[in-house]
Amino acid sequence: MSGKKNLIQPRTLKGFRDFPPALAMPREQMIDTARQVFRSYGFAPIDTPALEYAEILTGKGGDESDKQMYRFHDHGQRDVALRFDLTVPFARFAAQHIGQLGTPFKRYHIGPVWRGENTQHGRYREFYQCDCDTIGTDSNAADIETALVIHDILAALGFERFAIHVNNRLVLNGLLESLGLRAGTAAILRALDKLAKVGAEKVSAEMQAAASVTPDQARQILDTVQVKGTNGAILDQLEAQLGGHERAAQGVANLRQLLAAFAAAGIPENRLAIDVSIARGLDYYTGTVYETLLDDLPGIGSICSGGRYDNLAGLYTKQHLPGVGASLGLDRLMAAMEELHLLAASSTPADVLIVQFAEEALGQYIALSRRLRNAGLGAELYPEARGLGKQLKYADRKGYTLAIIGGPDELAQGVWQVKDLGEGSSEEVPDGDLLEYLRKKA
Amino acid sequence: MSGKKNLIQPRTLKGFRDFPPALAMPREQMIDTARQVFRSYGFAPIDTPALEYAEILTGKGGDESDKQMYRFHDHGQRDVALRFDLTVPFARFAAQHIGQLGTPFKRYHIGPVWRGENTQHGRYREFYQCDCDTIGTDSNAADIETALVIHDILAALGFERFAIHVNNRLVLNGLLESLGLRAGTAAILRALDKLAKVGAEKVSAEMQAAASVTPDQARQILDTVQVKGTNGAILDQLEAQLGGHERAAQGVANLRQLLAAFAAAGIPENRLAIDVSIARGLDYYTGTVYETLLDDLPGIGSICSGGRYDNLAGLYTKQHLPGVGASLGLDRLMAAMEELHLLAASSTPADVLIVQFAEEALGQYIALSRRLRNAGLGAELYPEARGLGKQLKYADRKGYTLAIIGGPDELAQGVWQVKDLGEGSSEEVPDGDLLEYLRKKA
Repeated sequence: MSGKKNLIQPRTLKGFRDFPPALAMPREQMIDTARQVFRSYGFAPIDTPALEYAEILTGKGGDESDKQMYRFHDHGQRDVALRFDLTVPFARFAAQHIGQLGTPFKRYHIGPVWRGENTQHGRYREFYQCDCDTIGTDSNAADIETALVIHDILAALGFERFAIHVNNRLVLNGLLESLGLRAGTAAILRALDKLAKVGAEKVSAEMQAAASVTPDQARQILDTVQVKGTNGAILDQLEAQLGGHERAAQGVANLRQLLAAFAAAGIPENRLAIDVSIARGLDYYTGTVYETLLDDLPGIGSICSGGRYDNLAGLYTKQHLPGVGASLGLDRLMAAMEELHLLAASSTPADVLIVQFAEEALGQYIALSRRLRNAGLGAELYPEARGLGKQLKYADRKGYTLAIIGGPDELAQGVWQVKDLGEGSSEEVPDGDLLEYLRKKA
Repeated sequence: MSGKKNLIQPRTLKGFRDFPPALAMPREQMIDTARQVFRSYGFAPIDTPALEYAEILTGKGGDESDKQMYRFHDHGQRDVALRFDLTVPFARFAAQHIGQLGTPFKRYHIGPVWRGENTQHGRYREFYQCDCDTIGTDSNAADIETALVIHDILAALGFERFAIHVNNRLVLNGLLESLGLRAGTAAILRALDKLAKVGAEKVSAEMQAAASVTPDQARQILDTVQVKGTNGAILDQLEAQLGGHERAAQGVANLRQLLAAFAAAGIPENRLAIDVSIARGLDYYTGTVYETLLDDLPGIGSICSGGRYDNLAGLYTKQHLPGVGASLGLDRLMAAMEELHLLAASSTPADVLIVQFAEEALGQYIALSRRLRNAGLGAELYPEARGLGKQLKYADRKGYTLAIIGGPDELAQGVWQVKDLGEGSSEEVPDGDLLEYLRKKA
């Protein structure tokens, strides 16, 4: 046999990965949870193609995105590319369909995106994004709802100690305007971005050098962006610092309404934190911005981020489409859930394994499995009438805690042997009592 | 304003399509249903990358597949391609991981695949496949289970009048062997494939010309492949026709066990039909084969097909992996469900719309929406305090049948006005009774 040398090596591309059940099941669980929350707020699903005309995608995510794009010519010599996020396709989708769909339009979109990134730092070249957006409204109620959605998804996934850090870009923009520093906004934000790393003194120096900021102005800016807190008092302080500038005051008022809404919703105060240092990109976001941190794992960074933008689809349509949205980091979330032991302990798709003890009794095992499924209990039937040990080993490997055994003796007596694989114990249960027994155990 | 000429035209590639909520919601519903059934039988989800090394995919689906493949060079100059089905990636996956996962291994996989097909006949270049397979076992119990899974999915989707048409490739192969015609199998199958189109006489002539079949043998073959029926009597007839050839007898025995299992499961007899004419491809399938037809829409063809194969991953591993599986045609299914009015009438993600009557009352609306969600009722809050007519029009367009209105008067009195958008009627409901009232209505 010379078979070996002709085999094709089974392997995945660098930066790509398979999801065996142990990874695919928790991902399904996370996505299901997110979908249920999205839907409970009236967000509806959409999907867009993986492949788009390259001109739709290029130049939208910056040079880095363009370089990382999987771009090629298709059979019709069209210049095409795989989507690198879900936002740009959504902008294209909205420009194309919003006339029919009407506004406000609320959608969620969960699907894979592709980036030919450097695979150092554990980055994948194919990963899922999970986004929700409300477009066609300027109302702060949509911003509030977005924060509530983030909160409810994390709570539904089982997280307890987390905080959504919010800011409103109007606050800092308003301050800079009132200081006559509007033209220097980008340089100032770039400097502020280094605050955590280099400290206030160096940031102050950079602002003075790069954006003609006076030392006094620099102090005022730094005082403002360092405002942090979880209650209304912090907003009073902010208001006092900012004086009466209208845009900044609007930003503070929106944050105040957000705090009030969380209180009205009965959400613990420490789950929403005002943090004026959050900027999230120089240009795109124009109002509320969100980052979400886990108290127990601050090091993994924000697991859900987003914000309000002024115009989603200006590149494809003249229709002005302001909106607000958030994106859940599924990979980070899954890593965090694993570390915090929030993933379901069992990775079994069904509830019980039915042992195939004797092939002649196949009809009886099948009838039993249907009875259990009709009652809402998943039941896997082992496909072969092999040794009991082999079947129980399979059950154990797959994470089952209960196995049902019916040999000739049991079948003759109208009973089933139910084995608790965790405890190693067995119990004989009359056929008529089986459902109730399993419901208690499963 | 010269904006227009600089806009990028928002469009999708030929053969690709967007899924707005009206399409995405029923697809989610179908996929959820299939997943629940798969899981209830112990199938677990897996996922594989959209992109694979081209050498993994080429030559596996025939010349046509190779030509239609989206193939290009990535940033690292690797020869890569988008998967054109879920079977070939599963074979690669199995070869790579089966040592760790163990056998038998049962998986489902639902995801998009890409083929640069001719877009005539309404074919899409991106479409979802929905597959389940059991590998690592020769047992007919797995074949039976596959048929049960197909049955349960269709029943769960709401189909009532359908039949799974089954055959076992051993029957015809065994007959041809016993007639000494094994070498001519391919030519004979090609001729038989035309039976419905050209009739028995022409097929007989072709078999005689192309595979040295005698007129008497041709009659025997045609008699066999035309055997059709829904009960055991048909198998007795088949057995008598075939004589005692061992392989053919095994095929008949497997079909008999399948009929018996469906009877034991209490499934109506007319949902399983023996049909010896089903071959499904010349080489790949080696045992049971399935096709599923809707009684009311036979013209759309098989909506769920599959079969038993002898070795899944022989191109990538020496490990022998026999298996059996089925693939659900989601696009066809959705078209059929639409035609038979099986899609949920409403396309609303949530249950009720809460009108934002007065912005000052936002906190109260938010508190109400949370109360409803906590009780399991999805509640969308309109984001703007706009005119009532506009909000009700939005509710109607989105498919809501219930809207909750709380103006200053209602809020002062502790009541809500619940509007039935279908009937156009309104009722005043005390705050304390609202949940119960909605549960009855929603």
